[in-house]
Amino acid sequence: MEYVKQNEIEPFSLGEGRSRYHIHTDNLMMVVFDFEDGPYEKPNPPHSHPHEQISYIASGRVAYFIEGEKVVLEPGDMITIPPGVSHTVQLMSEKARLVDAFHPVREDFLG
Amino acid sequence: MEYVKQNEIEPFSLGEGRSRYHIHTDNLMMVVFDFEDGPYEKPNPPHSHPHEQISYIASGRVAYFIEGEKVVLEPGDMITIPPGVSHTVQLMSEKARLVDAFHPVREDFLG
Repeated sequence: MEYVKQNEIEPFSLGEGRSRYHIHTDNLMMVVFDFEDGPYEKPNPPHSHPHEQISYIASGRVAYFIEGEKVVLEPGDMITIPPGVSHTVQLMSEKARLVDAFHPVREDFLG
Repeated sequence: MEYVKQNEIEPFSLGEGRSRYHIHTDNLMMVVFDFEDGPYEKPNPPHSHPHEQISYIASGRVAYFIEGEKVVLEPGDMITIPPGVSHTVQLMSEKARLVDAFHPVREDFLG
């Protein structure tokens, strides 16, 4: 039985006001991202990866930019990111939490 | 660009006080389950499936039973369900929301 209790772990810092923690199986990973520092003025630089991704907005309002299109999502909303597609986010609220699922596992998040 | 806005869809009813909605890519699915009716007294009947699963507890307190082991999880916690392993849940709160990721896609949830 493998689980992560939020109150028992130290999230991995991505710099001031940003962190993540995760769990994974052989071919599936779930990552919780907490943003407390924006980006507010403009989106993060876009990035892409060969993994399929689905994001669930757990809190906050978040603008997604995917291949030139923009949508603003709110808690309870979900969005897909196809493999290899350029994407980024911008916060429309002070803080936000995203729950991202990936296939396959993001090996770059391990260790 | 594919997304689901919670306020624009009608969740699929699983009976009184239980519903789900989902989104998926080729090999990945995310499903939001809302429980407003328990089970409070005892767990649901256990079930299993060949899919890898990871659950994120979005709200409520939920007891997971996996192969005879029990753990109570709270918002922000995550748990893995290996393929083919018997598992079930019991609510420790009036309501709960679970965000479940699956690989591969749960074809039984489509259509």
